[in-house]
Amino acid sequence: MSIENFGNWGKWGAADEVGAINYVGQKEVISAAGLVKEGKVLRLTQNLSSKTPISSHRCGLQHFMNRDGGDYAGGRHRPGGFQFAEDTVVMPLHIGTHVDALCHAWYDDKLYNGYLGNTIRSTSGAAHLGIEKMPPIFTKGVLLDIVRLRGRALYKSEIITEHDLEQACLKQNITIKKGDAILIRTGWLEAQKNESHVSFNEEQGINKEAAQWLADKEVCVVGADNYAVEVLPFKENTIFPVHQLLIRDYGISLIEGLMLDHLVAAGRFEFLFVSSPLPFVGGTGSPIAPIAVI
Amino acid sequence: MSIENFGNWGKWGAADEVGAINYVGQKEVISAAGLVKEGKVLRLTQNLSSKTPISSHRCGLQHFMNRDGGDYAGGRHRPGGFQFAEDTVVMPLHIGTHVDALCHAWYDDKLYNGYLGNTIRSTSGAAHLGIEKMPPIFTKGVLLDIVRLRGRALYKSEIITEHDLEQACLKQNITIKKGDAILIRTGWLEAQKNESHVSFNEEQGINKEAAQWLADKEVCVVGADNYAVEVLPFKENTIFPVHQLLIRDYGISLIEGLMLDHLVAAGRFEFLFVSSPLPFVGGTGSPIAPIAVI
Amino acid sequence: MSIENFGNWGKWGAADEVGAINYVGQKEVISAAGLVKEGKVLRLTQNLSSKTPISSHRCGLQHFMNRDGGDYAGGRHRPGGFQFAEDTVVMPLHIGTHVDALCHAWYDDKLYNGYLGNTIRSTSGAAHLGIEKMPPIFTKGVLLDIVRLRGRALYKSEIITEHDLEQACLKQNITIKKGDAILIRTGWLEAQKNESHVSFNEEQGINKEAAQWLADKEVCVVGADNYAVEVLPFKENTIFPVHQLLIRDYGISLIEGLMLDHLVAAGRFEFLFVSSPLPFVGGTGSPIAPIAVI
Amino acid sequence: MSIENFGNWGKWGAADEVGAINYVGQKEVISAAGLVKEGKVLRLTQNLSSKTPISSHRCGLQHFMNRDGGDYAGGRHRPGGFQFAEDTVVMPLHIGTHVDALCHAWYDDKLYNGYLGNTIRSTSGAAHLGIEKMPPIFTKGVLLDIVRLRGRALYKSEIITEHDLEQACLKQNITIKKGDAILIRTGWLEAQKNESHVSFNEEQGINKEAAQWLADKEVCVVGADNYAVEVLPFKENTIFPVHQLLIRDYGISLIEGLMLDHLVAAGRFEFLFVSSPLPFVGGTGSPIAPIAVI
Repeated sequence: MSIENFGNWGKWGAADEVGAINYVGQKEVISAAGLVKEGKVLRLTQNLSSKTPISSHRCGLQHFMNRDGGDYAGGRHRPGGFQFAEDTVVMPLHIGTHVDALCHAWYDDKLYNGYLGNTIRSTSGAAHLGIEKMPPIFTKGVLLDIVRLRGRALYKSEIITEHDLEQACLKQNITIKKGDAILIRTGWLEAQKNESHVSFNEEQGINKEAAQWLADKEVCVVGADNYAVEVLPFKENTIFPVHQLLIRDYGISLIEGLMLDHLVAAGRFEFLFVSSPLPFVGGTGSPIAPIAVI
Repeated sequence: MSIENFGNWGKWGAADEVGAINYVGQKEVISAAGLVKEGKVLRLTQNLSSKTPISSHRCGLQHFMNRDGGDYAGGRHRPGGFQFAEDTVVMPLHIGTHVDALCHAWYDDKLYNGYLGNTIRSTSGAAHLGIEKMPPIFTKGVLLDIVRLRGRALYKSEIITEHDLEQACLKQNITIKKGDAILIRTGWLEAQKNESHVSFNEEQGINKEAAQWLADKEVCVVGADNYAVEVLPFKENTIFPVHQLLIRDYGISLIEGLMLDHLVAAGRFEFLFVSSPLPFVGGTGSPIAPIAVI
Repeated sequence: MSIENFGNWGKWGAADEVGAINYVGQKEVISAAGLVKEGKVLRLTQNLSSKTPISSHRCGLQHFMNRDGGDYAGGRHRPGGFQFAEDTVVMPLHIGTHVDALCHAWYDDKLYNGYLGNTIRSTSGAAHLGIEKMPPIFTKGVLLDIVRLRGRALYKSEIITEHDLEQACLKQNITIKKGDAILIRTGWLEAQKNESHVSFNEEQGINKEAAQWLADKEVCVVGADNYAVEVLPFKENTIFPVHQLLIRDYGISLIEGLMLDHLVAAGRFEFLFVSSPLPFVGGTGSPIAPIAVI
Repeated sequence: MSIENFGNWGKWGAADEVGAINYVGQKEVISAAGLVKEGKVLRLTQNLSSKTPISSHRCGLQHFMNRDGGDYAGGRHRPGGFQFAEDTVVMPLHIGTHVDALCHAWYDDKLYNGYLGNTIRSTSGAAHLGIEKMPPIFTKGVLLDIVRLRGRALYKSEIITEHDLEQACLKQNITIKKGDAILIRTGWLEAQKNESHVSFNEEQGINKEAAQWLADKEVCVVGADNYAVEVLPFKENTIFPVHQLLIRDYGISLIEGLMLDHLVAAGRFEFLFVSSPLPFVGGTGSPIAPIAVI
């Protein structure tokens, strides 16, 4: 066994750029569609604007109007009275509710499945594992509600362990299956609502062992209502250990910044989950507007 | 009857900002989920990059790396070997496969449902009918394949009439129902594939009468594989008459730049259609990555 | 006399878009060149980066590499070993050391010389008085050092009056002449150097009476080492009164964010001042890198 | 003598980041100011807008209004009637009339004076030789008018040799001195004026021998009215040989895209030349608005 045999490397071939979404087969898609009973479509997304909170090492969204209603103030008239408005955004790809491409995080110069880190360049982005390689996700979603499990809001930087995830499954009477999309409610984002300043340096989230537990369950994606899925600050002498393990070793993307309030209000733990990232060629992630359908 | 009584104005209340997507109720959602039989998820999206064709009055996408693999070339080492890449885009909201918000086009200073055009400003975008007001679409999709109907590629600027749409329904043995998402294959985008220069001034598409026919069917959205849904150039002394009728009078959004090749290859005319725009506050549209699930 | 007869309106013709820089004639240029005695070129400019302080209603500068040294890490070789780097900025025009175009501020829907406010549009910027209309400034510069006059750092929001300006002239033994560029040292920027957070809401600066005094002296431009030239907060029930008076009534541009440390260290109050804005068509201002030559 | 002893490397110390502008001393500054006789300030700059021609591997300028006159159309009123307009640009640094920083071009992984190429990174731009290290240029400018020398417009891709430069000096009765700024009129930009499409692949310009001749004259900067200073296409098996020699070996920056029409009309070959780049930290160049003062 080679030292290069990490997590899911090679599992779907040496050229695979899809990772754990490979777990979602036709059977899982059909089964997920069957979860739609009430016909309600729930949004799991933060709005995007210059006010969308963003980690301080990133610049927020800028929204510019190329043409707007004010431009007609002077009374210009066109056939049929036609008028229109258009706009442009400057936007970091990791903003609001977003998904990490498999090229977003790695270690020791190698990405998931052994691709080289220096194939990600300024000139053309990621030659491998860019967000355009990520298929749309249409699968069973599972909400693991840790706030409900605890019966209280989590503390800042409170660790969610594999034991917590297990207990949540038991309490919610659900079983995680291969290909499921796991959404973890940490309560972080809802706790920020009335804060004037959002702190990205202290957040409740899962630890590395919980991440390993999820990887072993063969989930297709792990999402949370915080900004890194994992707990911050990190354990001493580690940096983003959950990112390293899930994204780089297991090819499991992270969905960050989920807005779970509608889903929590609906009281459903299993649902059809749909997320379809914008295919930026060579991009390291994409804002998404995922939905839960119940 | 007031002169202000256009199309669907007032149909869902004076404050409505959703428009025809109101036609999609819980019954339609459940029914659409039932169309998933094979468990295949088909992408209907163009890739997004600086090469994505764009109308000449708009500037193309720019993709910048904030951090990439090359930055580690100097050999910087962090705990656990952690490395990451991030990026930023400058992007017009009407690029690639995208949906028009109801504030995108109007006439005579009034938007859909009577909102004023000058409420769309440089400072904050659209106060009303912005893309963040558009719900995710989860409904039955209907492909009307005009290339198949004609048995040949359409000519540049060839008009698709309401009669054509009717004939396509008959030939395909399908019925359009309230709340359906209509996708029209004009063949425009696929014809551009081998062209060095994409012309946005001559395209086959529907005329105003066809648009009225669709509005009368109470569809929730109209999409096409061209860049304006409607035929270009316009009939004399008109500018974007289909945009004016559907978006402004009927509150029916347009989806432009659809990539229909996978769907056409699958040979299915009815399917679950899912489209979830990014909720840019006050935005006039959003790139989307819609899917057909069969 | 018409109600429309403000300040310098009409002084250089009804179509004038240059304003007070018209005061600088060939005589003034020759005379200014004569001030160069030592042959020292002093920079009066802040560096531009994401760290350049900016008022909170504006977004800071973003600097993106299109191509950089890391992109060659993979060892790509070209004839002669050629390599290069390029970059792109996203930048508000009023950042760092910058000059306001005459279209930047106005009141009652009319700009300097009577141009209409609604000729400044999203589609094309300012049709009149854009920064591309501003000639390069090459004239005598005068430093009015209020910190030196007071013999102490000014307080936050301390008002500089016309009396102060007059006293500074006397103390410095200088006379302001037609066409001079006035640079006022308030000490604001140097006081920010060791602050973690720069406040743009409290700054020492000139009041409206001082501005009128300068306008009456027929100066060509007024600059300062703060962010609005004028004192903040404003007198009750006024907003940017100095901007309104100087820019809109007198056609006198403001230069903001000057870095005066080198000039102060040189101990010179009169010098050749050169400022040449980038000619953004329809732009409301431009970052500049002005120099004092002594 | 080390193999690393290129051109001007080490001439101004191992830590030098200024290069040939070091040739401009106080004596040269004083002498240059003495060239101002008529008091005329001539602009040498192209306007900057989305229409400014740009090489196809770069994206053009985008100019966005954050606030404009149309935003007041709704009739918002503030104390004193105050209104204002602001804007933001997205801009490649090598656009229009611009200067190359010494970090812009290099070969064999080493920049001017031996700095390493991989110190230019996505995260922070150029650690060395960035445009913020370039001092303002205030020196004697020399126009070498090759169109006048030839007595006709140059052909596309016509080579300008060291002999041509020498002949131009003789014909114009001028002598190049240490520290001079050389501006070469190739006629390229003026020939593009009536062209619908500007070709950046064929341009008249200097060859490597002419560049060596200029370097030997100890000039401080070399500018031209074309887009690469040097002739295009390049001699076989070379890429930007003039860039490599002047920027990397000699620390001589290039100024590209000069607009020489006003200077040519003035009929002056020697003048005060002033160019002050914006100090983008780590930037590879800057648009500039240089002037000739006569």
